[in-house]
Amino acid sequence: MDLVTLEDIRAAAERISGAVLRTPLLPWGDGLWLKPESLQPVGAFKIRGAYNALARLTPEDRARGVVAYSSGNHSQAVARAAREFGVPAVIVIPDNAPEVKVEATRALGAEVVRVPMAERESRALELAAERGAVLVPPFDHPDVIAGQGTIGLEIVADLPEVATVLVPVSGGGLLSGVAVAVKALRPDARVIGVEPELAADAGESFAAGRRVDWPAEDRARTIADGLRAQPSERTFAHIRAHVDGFAAVSEARIRAAVRELAVRARLVVEPSGATTLAAFLELRERGELGDGPVVAVLSGGNVDPALLAEVLREA
Amino acid sequence: MDLVTLEDIRAAAERISGAVLRTPLLPWGDGLWLKPESLQPVGAFKIRGAYNALARLTPEDRARGVVAYSSGNHSQAVARAAREFGVPAVIVIPDNAPEVKVEATRALGAEVVRVPMAERESRALELAAERGAVLVPPFDHPDVIAGQGTIGLEIVADLPEVATVLVPVSGGGLLSGVAVAVKALRPDARVIGVEPELAADAGESFAAGRRVDWPAEDRARTIADGLRAQPSERTFAHIRAHVDGFAAVSEARIRAAVRELAVRARLVVEPSGATTLAAFLELRERGELGDGPVVAVLSGGNVDPALLAEVLREA
Repeated sequence: MDLVTLEDIRAAAERISGAVLRTPLLPWGDGLWLKPESLQPVGAFKIRGAYNALARLTPEDRARGVVAYSSGNHSQAVARAAREFGVPAVIVIPDNAPEVKVEATRALGAEVVRVPMAERESRALELAAERGAVLVPPFDHPDVIAGQGTIGLEIVADLPEVATVLVPVSGGGLLSGVAVAVKALRPDARVIGVEPELAADAGESFAAGRRVDWPAEDRARTIADGLRAQPSERTFAHIRAHVDGFAAVSEARIRAAVRELAVRARLVVEPSGATTLAAFLELRERGELGDGPVVAVLSGGNVDPALLAEVLREA
Repeated sequence: MDLVTLEDIRAAAERISGAVLRTPLLPWGDGLWLKPESLQPVGAFKIRGAYNALARLTPEDRARGVVAYSSGNHSQAVARAAREFGVPAVIVIPDNAPEVKVEATRALGAEVVRVPMAERESRALELAAERGAVLVPPFDHPDVIAGQGTIGLEIVADLPEVATVLVPVSGGGLLSGVAVAVKALRPDARVIGVEPELAADAGESFAAGRRVDWPAEDRARTIADGLRAQPSERTFAHIRAHVDGFAAVSEARIRAAVRELAVRARLVVEPSGATTLAAFLELRERGELGDGPVVAVLSGGNVDPALLAEVLREA
């Protein structure tokens, strides 16, 4: 399988420039820098891959429209990118996704179809076939991976001495793209995938050298609702080629990280995005971080207000 | 009285470059852009003025240390800037300021002295005299005003077509600096001061053409704890020379704006900082905004977690 290259990511960076926020690195202290993708227009890094994928469609493809499925942030991203290109979009969202994400997707002008978690991919494929529309997958596509990889370019540009990059992993599109860019430009930097202990399939797969399947109902237990997918054959190939290791974090640590980010960094970050701060704190405690500056990618900020309020009261 | 000039602000920008975050403009939609000074290292714009003031001290001044007083964010800013220059700092904080600000100031290595609100200035002057230390005032100083004015330079650089800038006003240092920069570079842009209805002394003063004094206990009623001070003779002179008008917002609007910023912009903004979004929404409703892009300066993000949780539950 052809892997995404640094050149693909550089081309994506040119394509998405202007449509996507060039997020700053925010100093946390203790050698950690935050990459707040939560500040993107849709509240997540997903706009990078979605915009790049839409930009690559032919005029004929655009006329027929696009279909997407995801636990939420990818949906909003495709809906927004589609709106900017004037393309009709249908979004399939699992019925356990937070209502805030569904509302935001509808507000962007997309048609929303809700289905049980296990049926989201099949229903999206059906819809695409019925309408002749193009499926924009949440991670299993070179253009999506290349778009997400632009985060890696920005990290190296802003912090050339970066030693470790912590990246949340679900389907692995973000991790794949960031790893390609960072390792191409800084072969000595470590790229670490981060996931919840309750959905630690990617780390287990990495250790086993082959994709290990966790039941969807197990993965659904974590509060990090954006990290319940599993790598595809394509993203796993990128991960094996470029990622250095994995870390898994507890639910308690994830909740504490959401709170800490709100209080200390003044950022609203969803549990999935806060896993990387959780991993930083845990790896530092264990003395497993190594030397040099660390970057934690905060992947998104779409958290239900009630959950954020609850976590804020957990002092 | 000599007013701060564009050249003073440009010199400040060079001095603080690297020590202060170059905050991005974040698109809100509806023609509004957010300037999130809440993302600064101390969680507020105050680091700009404090750093500029500390950078201007002589080695002899630095050896004797600095004293500051404020409702909180200026304290943290002076404490942080002092730490970076290796200067001892004593901070006088009123006893009604949020505990989160006091803790943050101590964590930066400063000595904290708590006093009743009405005594903060006199006690700071006493301490400065006792120790031979330099008082760094929260707003009534040209170097502080010039530092805050760097926000105006950045706004015009990032959005040259800016038509309206909304700026919170308390002592008026931020408003003065931003107004000098924006009006010098874009004479046709409107600079509007924003304050709570419960502490609307600056707008009343502006309308009267002379400083009108509101009792401190009246100003203390607003939830916007960073906007309880009044302009000085110096800042009022800048305001009269450069500001176009004022808007006052209700407590209910301020609380709703804090919530909206968390949910829709994924930013933790304190009530004082959220007043400008509140003003945008109110002025737009009333049809008083005029045409063209609007920038709302979000001055800070240091809000007590319990208050933020409370506001998040007010749907």
